[in-house]
Parts: sequence; structure tokens; C-alpha cells
Amino acid sequence: MIYADNAATTKMSDAAIDAMTDCMRNTYGNPSSLYEVGQRAKEVLEDARDEIIKAIGADNFREIIFTSGGSEADNQALRTAAEIGRAAGKMHIISSAFEHHAILHTLNKLEKEGFEVTYLDVHEDGLVRSEEVEAAIRPDTCLVTIMYANNEIGTIQPIREIGAICRAKGVLFHTDAVQAIGHIPVNVKDDNIDMLSASAHKFHGPKGTGFLYVRKGIKISNLIEGGAQERGKRAGTENVPGIRATAVALKDAIAHMEENDKIIRAKRDRLIAGLKEIPHSAINGDENKRLPGNVNFCFEGIEGESLLLLLDDKGIQASSGSACTSGSLDPSHVLLAIGRVHDVAHGSLRLSIDETISDEDVEYIINAVKEVVTYLRSFSPIWRDLVAGKKEFIL
Amino acid sequence: MIYADNAATTKMSDAAIDAMTDCMRNTYGNPSSLYEVGQRAKEVLEDARDEIIKAIGADNFREIIFTSGGSEADNQALRTAAEIGRAAGKMHIISSAFEHHAILHTLNKLEKEGFEVTYLDVHEDGLVRSEEVEAAIRPDTCLVTIMYANNEIGTIQPIREIGAICRAKGVLFHTDAVQAIGHIPVNVKDDNIDMLSASAHKFHGPKGTGFLYVRKGIKISNLIEGGAQERGKRAGTENVPGIRATAVALKDAIAHMEENDKIIRAKRDRLIAGLKEIPHSAINGDENKRLPGNVNFCFEGIEGESLLLLLDDKGIQASSGSACTSGSLDPSHVLLAIGRVHDVAHGSLRLSIDETISDEDVEYIINAVKEVVTYLRSFSPIWRDLVAGKKEFIL
Repeated sequence: MIYADNAATTKMSDAAIDAMTDCMRNTYGNPSSLYEVGQRAKEVLEDARDEIIKAIGADNFREIIFTSGGSEADNQALRTAAEIGRAAGKMHIISSAFEHHAILHTLNKLEKEGFEVTYLDVHEDGLVRSEEVEAAIRPDTCLVTIMYANNEIGTIQPIREIGAICRAKGVLFHTDAVQAIGHIPVNVKDDNIDMLSASAHKFHGPKGTGFLYVRKGIKISNLIEGGAQERGKRAGTENVPGIRATAVALKDAIAHMEENDKIIRAKRDRLIAGLKEIPHSAINGDENKRLPGNVNFCFEGIEGESLLLLLDDKGIQASSGSACTSGSLDPSHVLLAIGRVHDVAHGSLRLSIDETISDEDVEYIINAVKEVVTYLRSFSPIWRDLVAGKKEFIL
Repeated sequence: MIYADNAATTKMSDAAIDAMTDCMRNTYGNPSSLYEVGQRAKEVLEDARDEIIKAIGADNFREIIFTSGGSEADNQALRTAAEIGRAAGKMHIISSAFEHHAILHTLNKLEKEGFEVTYLDVHEDGLVRSEEVEAAIRPDTCLVTIMYANNEIGTIQPIREIGAICRAKGVLFHTDAVQAIGHIPVNVKDDNIDMLSASAHKFHGPKGTGFLYVRKGIKISNLIEGGAQERGKRAGTENVPGIRATAVALKDAIAHMEENDKIIRAKRDRLIAGLKEIPHSAINGDENKRLPGNVNFCFEGIEGESLLLLLDDKGIQASSGSACTSGSLDPSHVLLAIGRVHDVAHGSLRLSIDETISDEDVEYIINAVKEVVTYLRSFSPIWRDLVAGKKEFIL
């Protein structure tokens, strides 16, 4: 079996599982409790927070709020900016058309509450232009939220430039860095980031844990009200084992980032080169400005879902886009945002690999995809029309 | 070491830890993914949901939403009722003065949004009266939210009667059952419950997992927007290992509830009898209508925090109230709600035991508390005044 869907979720590392299991067994106290078992849990919690701070270049413990994952962090970040904006009479937000649904659906909610949202176009290369962000900023703009790297096509946005523009203009800048953290270098200071969302299960940590970075001095709004945990900003008994495992996984990911990057990038490039040989195919998003492990292609004349099922039969686990929307029949909003037409967007394949993939796996995938695409095209009415010249090839 | 703070958090059971670890290692797929590893994760998720449904007497899978814990579930339940109420022009909510802060703080937020909240008095016995609930219901009441069992004093509320009244009057009824689930029988149908919150780490399950029951037909509002998980009602990749471990822990708790209840109740009663021997002490809340493992006393003339620290020195881990507020210097809002004056409320001790506690442990605790209370009183200025007749004893 070849697992090539690390953008959907990763296998937990052994170190993270061990940390979690050890913590579940031995550090079971409630960090809010005064006695020793509780205080030990609190230490574990704060040590983990320190690791996270170091990992993203933050300043101090007040800047990290542990959440149940990336979606919660996104929701809380946007809610925070919206409350600040509302109080200042600034009700305009800038985002992009290919954000994660945790962003887009929260923005829809804010629109119903009276906010106006500008959704920037994403260019064919899968990139937002920083100058277009700058041009969109108005006196009443309270927030710019642009993802660090796209979850489907892996394109890495000009976050540092966007951050600098926002800083200069005095506008809050949030980035959903769920796909970036642990995979490429992210530094909230160098990148001029005010708020950042992350999810542990995307970097070989546990599911159900993530964090929100909020730069010191920004007044955080609660999403979950209740107890005094996380300095009153996120209620609920802290998931100490999950948080500990998150810190372990992130520390590991960063310690091995450089070496893993080289390994993964070489295999990604070989995958891209191999899949390009398939006629009437195209890579989605810029070939280089993308996550080291992301490969995303469209193949004309086929359905992505059939492709996935046949690849699964061959032991290859991949996806056609975001796992969060895989139940839907609509084509990916990301591929539409970069200008793919419906028919083409339907025939997409995302391979997201990690460093454990072998050269043999890579060749096996290339051959399998070639074979399956050819097979599916052999009885595709669209393909028949294309070949017969009744329809024009787009790719 | 004697752990007597199970109301703050429990040790995870070995079965729950094993289920979680196994799932982290082997069922790592994203349940939204189409391929086999993903679909296996989805099966684990839905099997867990079935177990939860059975455990609380619910009807079908649509009625359970997995959350990150009890606080999130409470927030979502209240948000759901508030949206339904707002749409119907019903902006009145009934609750009690001694609810968990996840309820009280969310209610405060709703008050700022225009809702009116009636906080029912809690009587000296730690119980809300169902007839007072009934009397408080108005034509514009959209929700009654009363906890199943109090988290500090363990008193079990007349939930079934309150539920029947709400059902008859057509008012939504939510109960925070975080302390009850897995400890006493709870059946959402028999109890006429419309919405119920639960937290896994209170019944030997993992931290960071809980669930919200919402009766079929009630339109659920999201707290976390984003992907289509939990039928679009709670975004974020599902914490499959945590959810699996939750189901395992709850199934176990219910399977052993009757036998454990007998064991725990006997030890609780011995603890209560022993601590009653301390002069100028009093149990908080009704002696019988309380959780089988809950003992909560006030001792006049001492500070609860010193009591806890000295008990910790003797290897006894207990609390003076909710772990969520232990950092605060204010006396417990629960004890104030049942009519304890500030001075007395400050000198409280909560012991919450499980079935693993031995008879020797129980006797050790009784003697230790007696000793420490006597010691603390020996240099307490309040106690000196009480003994000298300069102040009157309350207890």
C-alpha cells in the first residue's frame, strides 16, 4: 500500500504516538489542579507551548492558544478580527477564492453579519498577487486572510510580502498555515503574521489538536466560552496528551525539514515529470512554488473519482482534492479558482507524499496512473468526443 | 498516592488507551477519504457513534455530534437554541445559578446579544425545583438549560421532571451531563432531553473529546464552520482515535455501572460519615441525591487551598471545587448559590472517588482531613475568634 494523501492526514510518527500514550498513562492530571499530578500536567502543557513558540518564531506563551484543530483555529482567528473590526467600525475583509472552507464558510457567516468580503482572484499559477492584496486594502479593511499553502494544489503564497503590506497599512493579517507548518519554514515574525492557524495531524501529530498563534497585543475573542483555560481565551480541559504529541511531532518535523525536503522534492519532481508524459494532462498550480510533497494534475476526459477508486484497487491512496469536501459532487472550488473549467476540474488527482515513499513507489504510481487514465479514457464519452474532434481539447 | 479528584478528570482506562493507541497506529486515514484506509476510519467513527447512541438511549446517528469536549458541546447547544429562539422571536432562557462556566459564560454572551436569562435559585440541598422551572417558563422562553449533576457538589437534578415540563410546554431542554454520563443512568428519551453535553475525560476516556446529543428534528447551528464533517454541523477532521476511545470508555462505564455504583457509594457514605465527625463542618448538597462518588464539605475557620496543599503533602489529591476555576481567589459560585456565606465557602473540600479506591484509602483520607483541619484551625485567626465567641459559628 502506498499512502499518498498526506495533505488529507498523516500517519502519526512513532515518537508522537509514544509521547501521547505515555502522557495518557502517566500525566493524567487536570492542569488546572493545584496538586502534584495536576501541576505536572501543567508543566507538560507549558513545555509543549514553549516548543511551539520556538517552532514558529513567536515571542511568548501568551501568543499560543491550543485548539481542537485547524478549523477551530481559523474560526477563532476570523471571529477575533471581526470583533476588533466591528469595534473600530471597519467591516471589510480581504481573502481569496481558494481558501479552505473553514475560512470561506466563516466569511459567509460574517457577510450575513454585515461584513463585506473581497475575494481576490487566484491566478492560473495558483498564486495570489501581493500587489492585488495591497490594491484591495481600504480604510475600512480590518483583516486580510490568505492561506500559506493551498491544501489542494500546494501553491505557496507570497505570505511575507502580503504580511509586510498589511503591517505597513495597519491591517490585521491572518494565514491558515495548516498545510505549511512542519513542511516548509514558517516564522511569524519574519513573515509579518498577526495570526496563524495550524493542525497537528497534518505534520504527523494527533488528530483533534491544533493551535492558533495570535501576536501579543491583539485582543482575542473566544469561540468556546467557559473555564479559565488558555488564559480564558479557549475553554475546556486541555488535551494534554494531544498537545504534548503535537509539540513532539512539530519539533521532529522541523528538525528533519531540510533533509526531508530534499528527499520529498526529488520524488515530487519525478512524479510530475512522469505524469506530464500523459497526453492532455496538466499540472495544477506553479510547478516550483508549491509544497515539496504536492503533486496535482488534471487529466482531460476522465472523472477523478473513478481514477481514485481504481488507484485504490492498485494500492495507491490518493485524493482528488480536499478530504473535507470529498463527499461532494461539485468540482473543487480551488481548481475553478485557478481557471479550470468544470469538465477538466472533475478529472483531477492530488498526490501528497512524505519522506517515507520509495523510488519504486514513485515509479509504480506513475505507471499506475498512466494505465488507469488510459483505461478510463477508453470508455469515456467525453474522451471519444474529444478524439473525434466534436469537442476541443483544453489541455 | 490517592487520586480523589475524578470530577476534575479521570485516569484513562487501559482499554481506552489501548483503543486509542491502536487506532493512532492503524486507523490513521481521514474518514472523508474514499479509499480503503479512509473508509476504515469512517467505519470506526460510525461504530463509535452507534455505541454512544446506545449508551444514552438516542434514536439514530444524526443525533450525535462529536466535539472537542463538554465545553464546546455546551457552547454549541446554547448557540443552537439561541438561533432557534431568535428566529421565533423567543429571547428568554431559563438556567440556574450553579451551572458550569461553559454555560454561564455563554449565557452572559447571549445576554449581550439581547437574550434575557432567568437564573433559578438553587436550594440549600443543591437542587433546582422542577416546579420553579415550570413557573419561570414564559411564552417567549426558547430554552431551559439545567445541568444533570453539579460538578462541585454532585447533586443530581430532577432532570426527568424538568424535561417533561419543557416537553409539555414546547420549550427546548438542554442538560450539561458532563458529570453524569458514565456515572449514573442517563437516557435522553426517558429523561425528555432535547440536547445533552458530555465529555469523555470524565468517564475514563481521553481528553479533547466529547459529544453533543441533539434530538432529531432540531436545527443545529454550527460553532465551528468549515468542512462537511458531522453532516456539516461541526467542521474539522474527526478525531477518530479519540472518538473510538470515548466509545470504549463509555461502554465500559455503563457495563460496570451497577457494580461500581455499589462499591463507590459505600465508600462515599463512609467518607461522609467520617468527615461529619469534624466539628463545625457540613456536607454541601443533599446527602443522598448526589453522584455516587461525590463528597463535598465545608469546614469552618479554614482556607480550602491550604487544606488541599497539606492533603497533597499527605498524598491525597483533591480539590476545593471546579478545576476550571481553581486559579481564582473567589469562592465557588456553586457554594454561594446554595447559600454558603463567603467565609464558609472558602473552606471547602471536594473528594470525587472512583471504584479503585480502597477501604484503607478511605480511612486514611478521613484521618488526614481531620488532622489537617485541626492543624489549620490551630493558627487560624477566624477560628480563634469563633472559639473566643467574638464571631458566631455558622456550621
